[in-house]
Formats: sequence, C-alpha cells, structure tokens
Amino acid sequence: MTAATEKNLALVKETMTTAQRYAHAAGVLNFDMETICPSAAMEKLGEITAFFSTEAYKLVKQDAFIKAAEAIYEAREELPFLDRMMAESLHREYQKIKNITPEQSYEWDVARNKSYADWVRAKQAEDYGIFLPSLTKIREIELAQVALREDKWPIPYEAMLDNYERGITVADLDETFGKCKDRLLPVLEKIKASGKQIRTDFLSRTVPAEPQRQMAQYLLETIGYDFTRGAFTTTEHPFTSDIAVDDIRVTTHYYENAFTSSVYSIIHEGGHALFAQLQPRENFEHFIDQEITMGQHESVSRFYENRIGRSRAFISLIYPKMKELFAGALDDVTQEELYEGVNQVHPSLIRVEADEYTYTLHIIIRYELEKEIVAGTLSLEDAPRRWEEKYEEYLGVRPSKLSEGVLQDVHWSFGFGYFPNYALGNMYNGMYYNRMKNEIDIDTAVRAGDFTKINGWMAENVFAKANYETPKEWIRNITGREFTPDDFLDYLEGKYGELYGID
Amino acid sequence: MTAATEKNLALVKETMTTAQRYAHAAGVLNFDMETICPSAAMEKLGEITAFFSTEAYKLVKQDAFIKAAEAIYEAREELPFLDRMMAESLHREYQKIKNITPEQSYEWDVARNKSYADWVRAKQAEDYGIFLPSLTKIREIELAQVALREDKWPIPYEAMLDNYERGITVADLDETFGKCKDRLLPVLEKIKASGKQIRTDFLSRTVPAEPQRQMAQYLLETIGYDFTRGAFTTTEHPFTSDIAVDDIRVTTHYYENAFTSSVYSIIHEGGHALFAQLQPRENFEHFIDQEITMGQHESVSRFYENRIGRSRAFISLIYPKMKELFAGALDDVTQEELYEGVNQVHPSLIRVEADEYTYTLHIIIRYELEKEIVAGTLSLEDAPRRWEEKYEEYLGVRPSKLSEGVLQDVHWSFGFGYFPNYALGNMYNGMYYNRMKNEIDIDTAVRAGDFTKINGWMAENVFAKANYETPKEWIRNITGREFTPDDFLDYLEGKYGELYGID
Repeated sequence: MTAATEKNLALVKETMTTAQRYAHAAGVLNFDMETICPSAAMEKLGEITAFFSTEAYKLVKQDAFIKAAEAIYEAREELPFLDRMMAESLHREYQKIKNITPEQSYEWDVARNKSYADWVRAKQAEDYGIFLPSLTKIREIELAQVALREDKWPIPYEAMLDNYERGITVADLDETFGKCKDRLLPVLEKIKASGKQIRTDFLSRTVPAEPQRQMAQYLLETIGYDFTRGAFTTTEHPFTSDIAVDDIRVTTHYYENAFTSSVYSIIHEGGHALFAQLQPRENFEHFIDQEITMGQHESVSRFYENRIGRSRAFISLIYPKMKELFAGALDDVTQEELYEGVNQVHPSLIRVEADEYTYTLHIIIRYELEKEIVAGTLSLEDAPRRWEEKYEEYLGVRPSKLSEGVLQDVHWSFGFGYFPNYALGNMYNGMYYNRMKNEIDIDTAVRAGDFTKINGWMAENVFAKANYETPKEWIRNITGREFTPDDFLDYLEGKYGELYGID
Repeated sequence: MTAATEKNLALVKETMTTAQRYAHAAGVLNFDMETICPSAAMEKLGEITAFFSTEAYKLVKQDAFIKAAEAIYEAREELPFLDRMMAESLHREYQKIKNITPEQSYEWDVARNKSYADWVRAKQAEDYGIFLPSLTKIREIELAQVALREDKWPIPYEAMLDNYERGITVADLDETFGKCKDRLLPVLEKIKASGKQIRTDFLSRTVPAEPQRQMAQYLLETIGYDFTRGAFTTTEHPFTSDIAVDDIRVTTHYYENAFTSSVYSIIHEGGHALFAQLQPRENFEHFIDQEITMGQHESVSRFYENRIGRSRAFISLIYPKMKELFAGALDDVTQEELYEGVNQVHPSLIRVEADEYTYTLHIIIRYELEKEIVAGTLSLEDAPRRWEEKYEEYLGVRPSKLSEGVLQDVHWSFGFGYFPNYALGNMYNGMYYNRMKNEIDIDTAVRAGDFTKINGWMAENVFAKANYETPKEWIRNITGREFTPDDFLDYLEGKYGELYGID
C-alpha cells in the first residue's frame, strides 16, 4: 500500500467510526421511540435523532472525506480484502448521491414524509384520490433519482431494484416469476379442488400475552439467538433492529386470539437477528455490516420461519411446549392438526397474512404492476383496477375495498423496487436448503431442538460472504448452480401436494 | 436590554439548546443501558454516551460561551426574570469549575470510577481495607475541589453540602439534628417499651410480579402521574429519570416476597416525577429545570410516599385494590392491620429499609461522621468503629459486618455532603403539609382517590418557585415561617404516639 493510500484509508476509517457512533446512537433512540418513549416526547426525540443523522451525513459529505474515499476506491487493488469491500461499498453509495443537491435531497425527504401521511389518510378513508398526487410525485422523484445516478441505467426500474437487490435484472425476474406462475397456478387449482379439510378453529382460541411471551422467549433460545448481544420486547409491528455489532434487537406483538402470529413473527425476526449476529464481526469494523441485501436477509428469516418453523420436525419439537404454556388451547388438538393448521393454503387479499404457498403470487402481482408503473405503460390512475383484476386472475379473490387492495402496503409511499426481494428470499433458501440437507440431518437436529449444526452451517456457507458478493454470485458460490426458483417450487409442490393429497 | 446583552443572551441560549439536545440523547441512552441494552453492548453504548457528554461539555467550555454567560450575569438586572435565573445558574456552575484544569477533571473522574469499583469489591469482600485508599483519595479530591472554587468557603464541608442543598450551613444542621435527637430518642425508647404487637407476617407473602405491576400502574394513575409525558418500567434499583420536559420516566422493582417494596418505591418515584412534570415548562426552556435541590426533591417524593402513602386515608383507598390484585395475600388481613404493618417502627441496620420514624437517625449518624471526616477530626481508619458505636447509641443495634455498617451505602465513593438532604426533605414537607391541611381537606381527597386539588396546591405552592430560590427562602415563602424540624417531629410524635399507645 502506498503512503498516500494508507493516509486516505486512515482518514476514511476515522470518519466512518464517528459516523457509526452517530448511527449507533440514532439506532438506540429510534428503538426507544418504537418501544417506550412517551407520546408527548416523540416529536422532540425525532428531531434529535434527525440532528444526529444530519451530523453523520455531514461527515461523509465533506470534500476531504469524499476525495479520500474515491482515492482508496481507485487504489482498491492495493487494499486488504475487507478494506477493498469497504471502498467499493462507499463508492457504490457515492454513485447514487454524487449528483444530488442538498436542496433536492431536502425536497424529496419532505415529499416522502407527505406521501407516507397521505397513504395513511387514504387507506383510512378508502380514498385513492388522497394518495394519487403524492404517488405521482414519488414516481417522478424515483425517476429523477435514477437519472441523476453517476452510473447509468437504461431501464430505470432496474436501478430501483438495485437499491435493494444488487444485480438483479428485469429479465431475471420475468423469467423467475413466469416459471412461478406456470407451476403455482395449476397446483393451486388442485389444492382448492382437493376437498381436504384442515382444522383451524383452535387457531383463534384465547391465549394471554404472558404465555405467548414465554413461548417467544423459548423459541428465540431454541433457534440460538444470543441474548447477551440482543434484547427482546414488544411493539405494535414486529421488527429487527441491528443497532450495533453486539446489539441486535427483536420485537414481536401478541394477539390474544391469534397465538401463531407471535410464534411465527418471532421466528422470522429471530432469523434476521441470527444473520446479523453471526455475520463476521469484521464486517462491522469495516462498516459493511449493512451490505446484506433485502433478499439475502429475507432468505434467512424465511428459512427459519417456514422451511424450519413450518416443518413437521419443528412442530414435533414445539407442540409439547405450546401445550404446556397455552393452558387448554391445544387440549383437543393433535400434533398433526397443529402442523396442518399452520400450513393451510388459503388464497386471500392481504399479503402479510398470506400462507407460504400463495405468498409468491402476492409479490408477482406487485412486481407486474410496479414494473409497468415505472415504465409508464400503466397509469397510476388505472393501478387499483389492474390490482383487482390480477388478484381475481391469480388468486381467485377480489378486493371489495382499497385497504384490502392497492392501498394495503406502505411501500409505494416511499418508492418502487422493494417487493421482489420478499419472493427472492424463498428461492435462495430453497437452493441452499437442498445443499444443507445433503450435509446435515436437518430433521433429526430440529426434532432434538439442537440448532448448533444448522446455525454453524448457515454461518459458514450463507452468512460468511453475503456482504461481499451480489446475490447471484453469492448463491452460485454457495450451491455451485445458477439462481433458479425451481428448488423452491419443487419444495412447495412436494409439501403441499402431500398435505392436500394431490397425486 | 442593551444590544450587547441581547446578543450575548442569544448566543448563550443557542449553545444551551444544543447542549440540552446532547443531554436529552444521553438521558435516553442511559435509560436504555439501565433497562434493555444487552450486556455485550453496554461498554460501547457507555462510550457513546460519554462522547455526547464531552461534546456538550466542550460547548459550555468555549471561551465565547463563557464570556457571553458571564456578561449576561453581570447584566442580570436588565434581564427578564427567567433569563436572570438562567444567568445566575450558569454563573454558580462556573464558580465551581472555573479553576479546574481538564487534566484535574479527568484525573478525578478516573479516581471516582476506581473508588466506586473498590467500594463494590470491598462490600462484597467485607474488607474496608480495599476501599480505604480510594476513600482517602476521594476526601482529598473533595477538599481540592472546594479549595479551587472561585467563591470561597471557610468551612469546606459547607461547600460540599452546597452542591446538593444550596445555602444550608453546618450550624443549621447541628441545630436541626440536635433537636431531632432530643425528641426522637426518648420517644423511641417508649415505642420499644410499649409492648404493642404489630402483625407483619403477611408482608412477606408471595405476590407475583404481574399483579404488583398492575398495582404500581394503578398507584401512578391515582397520584396523577402523566403517562403521555412519561414511561414506566422495571429495573434492578428504582429511579426517576428526568430526560426532557415531556419525558420523565419512573422505574420500580418487584420482590415476590415483599410486595410493599414496589408499592412504596413507585409512590416515591412517582412523587419525584410529579415534581418534574408539574414544574413550570419555562424552566426547561431556560435550562434551569435541574435547579431543584435534592432536599426539595426528597420533600416531595416523601410527601407522597409517607405523609400521604402511609396515612390511614391512603390505606383505606388502596386496601380494596390490593386485596383484588394480590389474590389471597390479604384475605385474613384487616385494613387497620395493613396500616399498622406499613408503619411498624423497627430500629435496624440498613438505611434504605428503615421505617419513617427511625430514618432520620440513620441520616444523623452519617452527617455526624462525614462532617468530622471532612474536618479531619475523625480519621477514615476510625470511621467503621465510630459508625458501629453510633448505631448502638442511637438505634440500639450494632452491625456485625461491614456491609451492614459503614460499607452499606455507595455515596462516599463519590463524595460527601449528600446524606443530609434525605432528612431535610421530611422537614420541608412537614412544614408545608401543615399549611396545606388548612386549605384542603386532604383526608377526604385521599380517601376519594382525587389528587387534583392536592397536586394543584403542590404545583402552585411547592413546585412553582423551587428552581428560583434557595431551600431556606423557598420554605419561608411557602409557609411564612423560618425552616424548622418541629412540624415533622410533631407529626412523628402524634402519629407514632397514637399507633403505639404512648400517653
């Protein structure tokens, strides 16, 4: 390394250390706002958090910092591996913001805040007209932002996808989702026609919050969440907060008449947390701990939630504990009935309540719409109607109100390109599960409640390089094969074919 | 106001606004560390909190700020009232730190941290020798700090008292505590000799944490704590955290075999919180919200905890609720037995477990010792022996180990002069209670669970000017009389004379 590079590297790391401190503090303050901060103090604490974010942003917008960061990027071949990863990450980020003026940035923040507020109002009032002007503005902003990127994007929607899932193309998604529709839709018809009766009455039995909390605690312990490096509490909406290397917190919410909600949400968030806790510590020291894509993250949370959590092996593990904690609620329910209950296929209107089988179809609808919206081939005015048509076509259900249709999700109020990663996650874990099962007796380990080998395998194969590779490179390096949805689709057909007794 | 003063005032307020932001954030981060922060993340979050404290300290150590602050102090007669209060508060603080070098400040911080750690080890090991070198160092630091103050203090111990209770003198305390001993000690002998049997068996019955939490919630609601401007959770040691104008949090701890512990700790902390919540909002905007002395604060927390909380009226209010929540624990206990149980006089070794009657004697012992320690008339080597002699003399009990004797309290590990305010609080509220009862039917209000008038009276008479006056001025202005312990002593004699059937 030349002396100049060494100096630049030192400057970059020093600045990033301070910025990370601000981010750490902002993370704790945000968590406080989500959990315990009194209502009257929210606004002020929000201002303080914003003040710290601004201070951190100022640091990385300094000319000296940018020069040094760009210089180490130019000299990246000289750098040790993790320093090079850091330099590339900073460079990628810089491509996105380089040509944006502070005025534009401010204007867009204001517009996004307004857009979020309008979406809330519109959903409550069941009035798309309230949201439409903001949504139109968000589309303009998203396109302007792409146009200003230093790296060029002939297909603007791909730049938006790239924000969440680096390297994924429209061609990839068209092919993937095309395959999904081809295979999922015919089998869905057979499932509907199967006549299989699945008991679900017990799923709405009353279970108080306290035993649900004990169950959640047990589940986190079981899957190997490290409580010395994390915390666990309740919030309105469950989330994982990766505040710092040794501070990865998870939350859940208890519905007294839907006990499986907290059970599966805590396994899902616990999966995200395991990924964050078990990634290499050096990632944090090189400021690339956030370089995990949304799709990679979802692949892990859904691996624990669905592949493991909704398997017969896992149900056999937790069934006795649930019976013990949820006094009475499962007295007349067999282990097999519990398994079937948490795996019922039920085409519905609401994405976040969708079962494992139909979930991908909800995502495909959003993908098909937003791709056309960004391209300009579908007007925003027509989006609600197209939404309803597609739900009818793919799922056989039709929303009767906007809050169950196009207004159900918050995502478009801040931009486009997020949804596909939810579906990609399932396909990634479909692929690596098939390698894992050749190397580990997953079923036996899960039945014994021993996650040591599973987590060790995940750390070594899935978590170790996620931050350094694009998802396509990463899944190829894990499995030795190119990305494909086939493994996931095979799994669904096998599992649900058996459950519904389809040939 | 001259243009120069106006400019200086603006500079001071701008700087203090930023410093307050850092303090607000540090308050939230500290609260996080006390409540939910994972163990592995504590050290780093502590560093970040210290980083913010340093940033805030840098702001008020800038030459331009000091000049402006001193200039507005010189021009204080020109200022509106609250600005003048702010200027005087800043000036007082500056007197204390003006002549201290950053090196001294750092050295003392290190010594205090070591001293705290040594105290913890010494207490665990029952070995005073572990603590003695640190305690000797703390005494040196405290004396050096007084010697460096810009304002001069012929009696060093009075400067230490002044840090917590502005304007109180050794003569005041000698007279006050002398009276206390004269009146408390003879009656204590009569109480011990009275033969009165008080039932306490039920006080150690098992009550789980959840009903205790519900009781604490009910108590906070009852005394008028504003949950929209505060939060309530559990910690190892109960405390009140005044993070910001609209963020005053309280905590408690549940002991399953001592349910009155959380009941009275939450009323105590709730009292502190009411003071902070009901002081004039403008205090926060003028950065003088912390100008309440420790004695003033304790007067209020103990007003709610003892004067109200241990009265027959309050017991009649909470007895049915306790019976309802603490299933079974009070089934064979009458309301009068509950009243007697929470008011039993029982001379003991541990200050924090002392009853209302003997509490003052614990404080007097500490006062008499620390006054002599600072003056140099009692050597630190002899302190444990003197401690034991005084407990024998005043309370008739003798510690058999150091953790129940001189090593029980943390306070001396950071300095001297704190203890007296605990006792002064009772005397202040003894005086203002006697005015309040002439203007409000306290008994009827408490029995009805209606704290509107009581809190309104407290806000108007007790809270409104606490931040602007020395405690002696303040209590004179509330009651029209000079400070005296007589009201408190009359109350104790009346209440406990009746309870123990003494002439």
